[in-house]
Amino acid sequence: MFGIITLTTDFGYKDEAVASMKGVILSINPQVRIVDISHGIPPFNIGEGAWVMMRSLKYFPPAIHVGVVDPGVGSSRRAIVIETANTSLLVGPDNGLLLPPANELGGIKRVYEIENPDLMLHPVSISFHGRDIFSPVAAHLSRGIKIGEVGPPIKVESLVPPPWSPPEIRENLIRGQIIHIDHFGNLYTNIPIEKVREVGSVFEITLGDRCETAKLVKTFSSVSRGTLALKDDAYGYLEISVNLGSAKEMFSAETLQIFSLKPLHQ
Amino acid sequence: MFGIITLTTDFGYKDEAVASMKGVILSINPQVRIVDISHGIPPFNIGEGAWVMMRSLKYFPPAIHVGVVDPGVGSSRRAIVIETANTSLLVGPDNGLLLPPANELGGIKRVYEIENPDLMLHPVSISFHGRDIFSPVAAHLSRGIKIGEVGPPIKVESLVPPPWSPPEIRENLIRGQIIHIDHFGNLYTNIPIEKVREVGSVFEITLGDRCETAKLVKTFSSVSRGTLALKDDAYGYLEISVNLGSAKEMFSAETLQIFSLKPLHQ
Amino acid sequence: MFGIITLTTDFGYKDEAVASMKGVILSINPQVRIVDISHGIPPFNIGEGAWVMMRSLKYFPPAIHVGVVDPGVGSSRRAIVIETANTSLLVGPDNGLLLPPANELGGIKRVYEIENPDLMLHPVSISFHGRDIFSPVAAHLSRGIKIGEVGPPIKVESLVPPPWSPPEIRENLIRGQIIHIDHFGNLYTNIPIEKVREVGSVFEITLGDRCETAKLVKTFSSVSRGTLALKDDAYGYLEISVNLGSAKEMFSAETLQIFSLKPLHQ
Repeated sequence: MFGIITLTTDFGYKDEAVASMKGVILSINPQVRIVDISHGIPPFNIGEGAWVMMRSLKYFPPAIHVGVVDPGVGSSRRAIVIETANTSLLVGPDNGLLLPPANELGGIKRVYEIENPDLMLHPVSISFHGRDIFSPVAAHLSRGIKIGEVGPPIKVESLVPPPWSPPEIRENLIRGQIIHIDHFGNLYTNIPIEKVREVGSVFEITLGDRCETAKLVKTFSSVSRGTLALKDDAYGYLEISVNLGSAKEMFSAETLQIFSLKPLHQ
Repeated sequence: MFGIITLTTDFGYKDEAVASMKGVILSINPQVRIVDISHGIPPFNIGEGAWVMMRSLKYFPPAIHVGVVDPGVGSSRRAIVIETANTSLLVGPDNGLLLPPANELGGIKRVYEIENPDLMLHPVSISFHGRDIFSPVAAHLSRGIKIGEVGPPIKVESLVPPPWSPPEIRENLIRGQIIHIDHFGNLYTNIPIEKVREVGSVFEITLGDRCETAKLVKTFSSVSRGTLALKDDAYGYLEISVNLGSAKEMFSAETLQIFSLKPLHQ
Repeated sequence: MFGIITLTTDFGYKDEAVASMKGVILSINPQVRIVDISHGIPPFNIGEGAWVMMRSLKYFPPAIHVGVVDPGVGSSRRAIVIETANTSLLVGPDNGLLLPPANELGGIKRVYEIENPDLMLHPVSISFHGRDIFSPVAAHLSRGIKIGEVGPPIKVESLVPPPWSPPEIRENLIRGQIIHIDHFGNLYTNIPIEKVREVGSVFEITLGDRCETAKLVKTFSSVSRGTLALKDDAYGYLEISVNLGSAKEMFSAETLQIFSLKPLHQ
């Protein structure tokens, strides 16, 4: 039994798709609370969907989290339910979207493929599995059916990989990826800030064609205008920013680009 | 007694109008669940509001559905409550907005005009009946007052007609209307897909100045890039699309335009 | 004990910030109902946040209202809880944001500074007090802790002043401020409409370089196209509008500009 179902989609706020999902859920479980994470994920952008889910879901009590950023809907991509170590369930397509949030929720405990037609809304459309498969399955799970009822267990190793790789952390080199760029030009990464702290306090950053030096700071108040700095992104990960400027422009950075940090011993 | 009130408006997400409606509802019925359908309807666009409501409301259990796309607020247009065959209630202006969703909910059973001042928030403003009339009436109805308490019954025939006409379906000709165009240029229509299936599988479409031939398909995978095709819009209605292209551009199509389908016997 | 927590922020609808706040709240009080007022406040615009909150919160039953428009986060600005005369609580930064809504909720009864670390989410980030301080404090208050547990009482006089001043109302002159301009160019003010009615029915408006004459009307139907008029903004305050035109353009008006109304005796 789960009291909360969250929804993350790229369906936007104008049309009726999200409302249809809510109607389906409430028809099956009128008691469950539905919380919108975001419906403003850029269309088909699995990386951005994963980024939003990995950041927010960890603040919830154990819940069912539905993610629908699904460019492969209607193809042979699998529909899955992941049980995480913190006893939450993630429901969505097997396209990498659910793996970064699963990792934040303690890691994957078990995964099942959704195959049971009794849990789906019929006729199942070819293009809207958010309404016809993921929503009713989440609603039935919230009412307490066993996860194994959705379909057969599948191997974690068989899952489509996440949109970005884990960072590579060595004593004298950290290699990570830009996983989000905000409208100020701040670069968000997949590197846990405590790993950066363990390795040093001043770094050489190599990203694209450029190589720059930057300090690890608590706030921008300690660096001057236009200066590059490294800090906690308020979610426990490394953020690369320029005080009152754009790190994106400085490096001509793009999402999913790989970069490296080398500690400078001073 | 109803446990759910849904809201569809053209008030947008920036200002406080929708929140004021929710405050009014919760002041009268603190227990009712409020579900946002969309507040991103283009301002005063009754057709788009009707389209969003007709597509999503049918997925809900019996509920009270408030629709406020109301260019005539402050004039003599009537405020109404429609009871549908599926025992839902639709609350809003008598301007055609509520008729397509009523049709999807099994059709109209009874209609009443809202006149009872005891159910309104005073002073009733001239420009914001969503807050002062529709929200409190919906909240009182959710608490179980009889529908007849809102005011006198009125005749269905006296209602302002819906933004589009029912399709005309004959053995060798179907005539319908474009009721929505999405940002890809796909054309959504008011023709039930099963009616199209009954009549044929290849059609001549006449829309504006152009006449084109198209097949009824399950997915785009069966037609080549740039090819016109007819398919289910995932909501049970005919969609006219160009694979990886824009049907809107092909036909210079506009919302509410009338078109015809003629089956080709092959 | 409070059953409702409302949220007003400038975090937007795309990213995960608001969802993180909701997760924190539901982790502490899984029963409380969360209502979004708006997350579309222009970034760091305290005046617009105050305007949206002052208009909508008064329609709610007694509740906890969280407001986060917080350009000073991470500086020494205080975090506060205001208890209002209508027994609601306002939670947010001490930057003027909460004062106009407090005024609409009957005025300030008591104010406390938030200092109790037991009510915060640790580690408390430097840039996201909405998640780490305001949300958990609101959730604990909703569960019934005494307001004094958040920290020491502070003097009302010590609060950062609101984004606009109270209007100055004399028998032959009213002086107020433009507190919002909508996309039609209508000017919203801080002057209660009944004060205007008490003073006269035709006025000379001086705003910036221009001085114009305008009548107090119920609706635009009583003035011709392009004519300036004064009316109730549907929330009990004076609105300055041009029928089918833009008062903003007529006066080159800007938000927070001061203007005066002089009654003309006819």
